[in-house]
Amino acid sequence: MTDRKRIVILGAGFGGLFCSLKLAAQPVDVILIDRNDFHTFQPLIYQVATGTLDAVTVGHPVRDLLHKHKNVTFHVAKVLDVDFGAREVHVSGMGPVSYDYLVIGLGSVANDFGIPGVADHAFPLYTLDDAVRLRSHVLLAFEAADKNPELIEDGELTFAIVGGGPTGIETAGAMVELIATSLAEDFPNLDMAQSRVVLIQRESMLLPPFDPKLQAYAEETLKDRGVDLRLNEAVTEVNSTHLVLDSGETIPARTVIWAGGLKSNPVVEKLDIDLVRGRIPVSPDLSIADHPEVFAVGDCAAVMSEDGERALPQLASVAKQAGEYVAGSIKRQLADKPVKPFHYSDRGIMATIGRRAAVIQMPGGHTITGTPAWAAWAGVHLALLSGAESRVTAVLDWSWSMFTHQHRSRIVLNRDEEEDQSS
Amino acid sequence: MTDRKRIVILGAGFGGLFCSLKLAAQPVDVILIDRNDFHTFQPLIYQVATGTLDAVTVGHPVRDLLHKHKNVTFHVAKVLDVDFGAREVHVSGMGPVSYDYLVIGLGSVANDFGIPGVADHAFPLYTLDDAVRLRSHVLLAFEAADKNPELIEDGELTFAIVGGGPTGIETAGAMVELIATSLAEDFPNLDMAQSRVVLIQRESMLLPPFDPKLQAYAEETLKDRGVDLRLNEAVTEVNSTHLVLDSGETIPARTVIWAGGLKSNPVVEKLDIDLVRGRIPVSPDLSIADHPEVFAVGDCAAVMSEDGERALPQLASVAKQAGEYVAGSIKRQLADKPVKPFHYSDRGIMATIGRRAAVIQMPGGHTITGTPAWAAWAGVHLALLSGAESRVTAVLDWSWSMFTHQHRSRIVLNRDEEEDQSS
Repeated sequence: MTDRKRIVILGAGFGGLFCSLKLAAQPVDVILIDRNDFHTFQPLIYQVATGTLDAVTVGHPVRDLLHKHKNVTFHVAKVLDVDFGAREVHVSGMGPVSYDYLVIGLGSVANDFGIPGVADHAFPLYTLDDAVRLRSHVLLAFEAADKNPELIEDGELTFAIVGGGPTGIETAGAMVELIATSLAEDFPNLDMAQSRVVLIQRESMLLPPFDPKLQAYAEETLKDRGVDLRLNEAVTEVNSTHLVLDSGETIPARTVIWAGGLKSNPVVEKLDIDLVRGRIPVSPDLSIADHPEVFAVGDCAAVMSEDGERALPQLASVAKQAGEYVAGSIKRQLADKPVKPFHYSDRGIMATIGRRAAVIQMPGGHTITGTPAWAAWAGVHLALLSGAESRVTAVLDWSWSMFTHQHRSRIVLNRDEEEDQSS
Repeated sequence: MTDRKRIVILGAGFGGLFCSLKLAAQPVDVILIDRNDFHTFQPLIYQVATGTLDAVTVGHPVRDLLHKHKNVTFHVAKVLDVDFGAREVHVSGMGPVSYDYLVIGLGSVANDFGIPGVADHAFPLYTLDDAVRLRSHVLLAFEAADKNPELIEDGELTFAIVGGGPTGIETAGAMVELIATSLAEDFPNLDMAQSRVVLIQRESMLLPPFDPKLQAYAEETLKDRGVDLRLNEAVTEVNSTHLVLDSGETIPARTVIWAGGLKSNPVVEKLDIDLVRGRIPVSPDLSIADHPEVFAVGDCAAVMSEDGERALPQLASVAKQAGEYVAGSIKRQLADKPVKPFHYSDRGIMATIGRRAAVIQMPGGHTITGTPAWAAWAGVHLALLSGAESRVTAVLDWSWSMFTHQHRSRIVLNRDEEEDQSS
């Protein structure tokens, strides 16, 4: 028993969690460490921000997912440092954790690209806490405008979303829907025509990796639903009352949602690894340079496509497959079997634009739009939502939202930090 | 239309909310003001603190409850002051609000009875934010003990609950259940026998207003379920690591939950009213001295029993009936009809001790205990939970919890303030 190898996994996102699950019941000891006690179902956090799903549907207790697996131990701790030479990890609140294999899946953070004011005034949308904070801010903006309609002119009801990738378009679509349905009912004295959702995209099209047909569909659908779309526009400055575009235009907006891409996690930056464009460079077997026993997976890793031409996108499905691949590689190594390079099996990409509107691009190039795509999107996400109860709750919340146009999770908790702004 | 009277209601708790609903569709203008955008279903917040129900089941958007009522306007604002002479209310974020009638239903706050350390170190359990904060603290205590078992000796897993009224016994019962089921599964490496739930009660019995049979049942059931019961004990000091009893005993405890009673809300204290034992004294018609147009309802009001002997308890049902009574009185006054004094129709009192255990005392003196009482308790609370969806969600959460012994809402959000303690 004493020669059981110990595998330490940093981060319980899609990469780390699925790596752990794949190593469960194997003759190894697994220690999984995350800053939070929950796994975040990342693709749905915009639904928490826009009041459709509650936080506990999208954040599932990690321990709940590991009950059956006696060889996996979980700790809530912040990663402080890794000593690659001594093969040990330093984390908050407990002694050093030594490893035989290390899997780094610590994720990323929102990239402000050094644009002035973004770090201080824009709302990132990457973590579950981000989503709850943004939801409170949006709801309190309507409360403030309802008390003082003259604030609307100053952008109290203007929600600028920066970034035309999936997060940006999903948030924009969900936001116009929230405003047109539940909030219009909640605030009968406000003229919702004065509320604006502006989507700003640096490039000339939305959803750059998607088929042009899908890009056009997304563009048209968002415009139809009232999103003020600004393509070919970059943001040069953000502050608490407005943002400035490089065309020189100033848009008054009290809420700027930053979906403009990711950069390296400060925790990863502290590690003794040379990052490439903010991500950890990895070999075809996802190990890092000079340390075949250390792997990187998920958003923090620059996993290259098989032709070596480009880094794979920062998607849950890439993270999940990478995590499972690393678990498999470790098992093979322990069994003295040769390890094959990582192969990403493309299951297609999808994004939802709102009720009954989504786009799906299948690996072969086949595309789906509209209600069928939306139904497929909902089905896939339900199937993936960890935990039977989360699934049932999500069905309930979504059905409720579909049939009643209601967003039941629209309450403001922990509002102390917003206090001064709204009063 | 210009002679429509304006009724301003401060607080959207049971008193203020039901007063508003009763005035809906009447030829009056109602302005309801609350610090939060949600109505709290107060009797169930201990279930949020112990991870069974999520926050959005127990906090329902006020605007959602008022959609159909065009004559009721709602504002989220903090009450700053009332000018009884000028008949206007000053609130945050908007101009003065004038009234013809004013209903004060601002609630209370936890009473520390001046005991050193309570304000700084104990966790009150009165608001929904209190419940979410306590839940995070409890979960992080287990995480900390799991990383460092030596902390257990210092009280990391000791949860002291002060107060043997309904809130105290409900919290104690739910806490032992949470620990014995979900947390025991979550933390297989911790010896749960080392975790303690201590319930401290100043008087010689639990649930003072209940029948002695029910008091004995509660005592026995809690003891059976592992609660360390301390009757006839008062707390003389609380700090971050322990509490001191007046017997001189020191109990190491990192979590002290304060269910020791209520005192006046600081907002109410600022009003130009002489409080009696922290509550607003009211006439038999619930109006305040010298101001027949101003009423007080709910926990902030000292509503006397009809014999004038004692103040009615601070219960949701008293608040609801008082709110509805005031609405009726105002309608009668506007119709030039005489107003009758408030009569509290006692529907009995109940408290739940945990799964399949509750006590009910009917007005006639009839008592119910055990599973039948628990089922009745669940039924009554479901019927009262505002909003069909909250009801469905609560059924789901409760059934899930009953059949699987799971507490699905056990995740830690917004943990920044806890950070230093746990790391």
